[in-house]
Amino acid sequence: MEKPLILITNDDGIKAKGLRVLIDIMKTIGKVVVVASEKSMSGQGHSITVRSPLRIKPVITENGYEEYSTNGTPVDCIKLGEQIVLKQKPDLVVSGINHGSNATVNIIYSGTMAAVLEACIDEIPAIGFSLLDYASDADFEPGKKHIKTITKNVLKNGLPKGVCLNVNIPAVNGSEIKGVKVCRQADARWVEEFDERKDPRNKNYYWLTGRFEKRELDNETDQWALDNNYISVVPVHYDFTAHKALSQIEKWKFDDK
Amino acid sequence: MEKPLILITNDDGIKAKGLRVLIDIMKTIGKVVVVASEKSMSGQGHSITVRSPLRIKPVITENGYEEYSTNGTPVDCIKLGEQIVLKQKPDLVVSGINHGSNATVNIIYSGTMAAVLEACIDEIPAIGFSLLDYASDADFEPGKKHIKTITKNVLKNGLPKGVCLNVNIPAVNGSEIKGVKVCRQADARWVEEFDERKDPRNKNYYWLTGRFEKRELDNETDQWALDNNYISVVPVHYDFTAHKALSQIEKWKFDDK
Repeated sequence: MEKPLILITNDDGIKAKGLRVLIDIMKTIGKVVVVASEKSMSGQGHSITVRSPLRIKPVITENGYEEYSTNGTPVDCIKLGEQIVLKQKPDLVVSGINHGSNATVNIIYSGTMAAVLEACIDEIPAIGFSLLDYASDADFEPGKKHIKTITKNVLKNGLPKGVCLNVNIPAVNGSEIKGVKVCRQADARWVEEFDERKDPRNKNYYWLTGRFEKRELDNETDQWALDNNYISVVPVHYDFTAHKALSQIEKWKFDDK
Repeated sequence: MEKPLILITNDDGIKAKGLRVLIDIMKTIGKVVVVASEKSMSGQGHSITVRSPLRIKPVITENGYEEYSTNGTPVDCIKLGEQIVLKQKPDLVVSGINHGSNATVNIIYSGTMAAVLEACIDEIPAIGFSLLDYASDADFEPGKKHIKTITKNVLKNGLPKGVCLNVNIPAVNGSEIKGVKVCRQADARWVEEFDERKDPRNKNYYWLTGRFEKRELDNETDQWALDNNYISVVPVHYDFTAHKALSQIEKWKFDDK
């Protein structure tokens, strides 16, 4: 079989260690093209750049490997990668390895997973990988073989239409990882605690900070899997419909009599 | 009954006509506090501001009505509104009225709907309103009574836990609006067509543009409702899990033997 064409991006920026590790893994599987933001786009969610122009710059172009940096968001990187760099759909998109969790509600703020969802909208098989360690020198070694296994599964089995994967890896030694668990997204939230300060002109400003609040510990969830040293694999989609709520809301009276 | 406390935001910026119309409607229902971005945040998705400090500035503070502008995203506005301005949860969050559709896949790029989902994560009943007209002087008049009816339904009936509403209004005369339809999100996508240009130094740059591609016209969807002059009401949630895909992916072999 011909080597699959793999497009890689992330949201921690093109210099992030997690991206470098992911590139190394993917080079053992396919032909790799990287399109990533020149700076960190963490917390950018599904943001796209519509009010300023996009730039794309080749960083490395060697035999069988290409790397480009952009001023865009992770979602822009997928769009630019498909349309400008590859001029075709890749066989696979992988994003990450994110420095920090994208499990539970974190997915909604995540540029890493936004890139994956964007590829999914374009009907490209796509996987986001995240390690539960925010440190810039985090140890990605223990997750490497699992990332390879999960990627090979996706290439071999395909993914259902409109579905991509959100993979999170606990920050533990390789021997402590118990395996891979397919699970659903747990409910959780960030409780905001703004850090209020005064500038030299005595005006208030605020740093967004917060404390993570687990709201569900069911053993079918990603939070449970990660708390118990499993790698969590959540199949996700971009259908936001709360299907179970449809029948209840259909009963409302909308004719204002 | 005491007047409900209603927090309003949008993603077209504090000066947008759609926001002004929504404020006028909500003033007839409850006590209104507005926290909105000083400039347009369209296409910002669920972006949050973590690398620069947030500022918040009172614009109007009069008896029973307050308005604040911020340098943050729509999601930041919800967080600031709750924590800094109100120091409590409002009874309701409404966002919009967006200039342009947030139906189908547009929800994922939308700052308007991101604010709604953020409120939903914080367990506040929340509704996003959008009109299918991007013009800055769009005519919001025909949708007004329906916005009021839908809002009153939410205040009266409540919403299921973890569910908020995505409401889209067709850009037609009031007499042509056939009513309100509770429906699910249709599949669709934007086909990117980058506008490639050269700057005075002969370097390429790209404007993100695109063409909307409907991929589903089922009469249970928001796209069908809007195409047939109904107002679409889609109950949405922040659980991205593709529940139907779980059993299929559980069958994969993850032990790399």
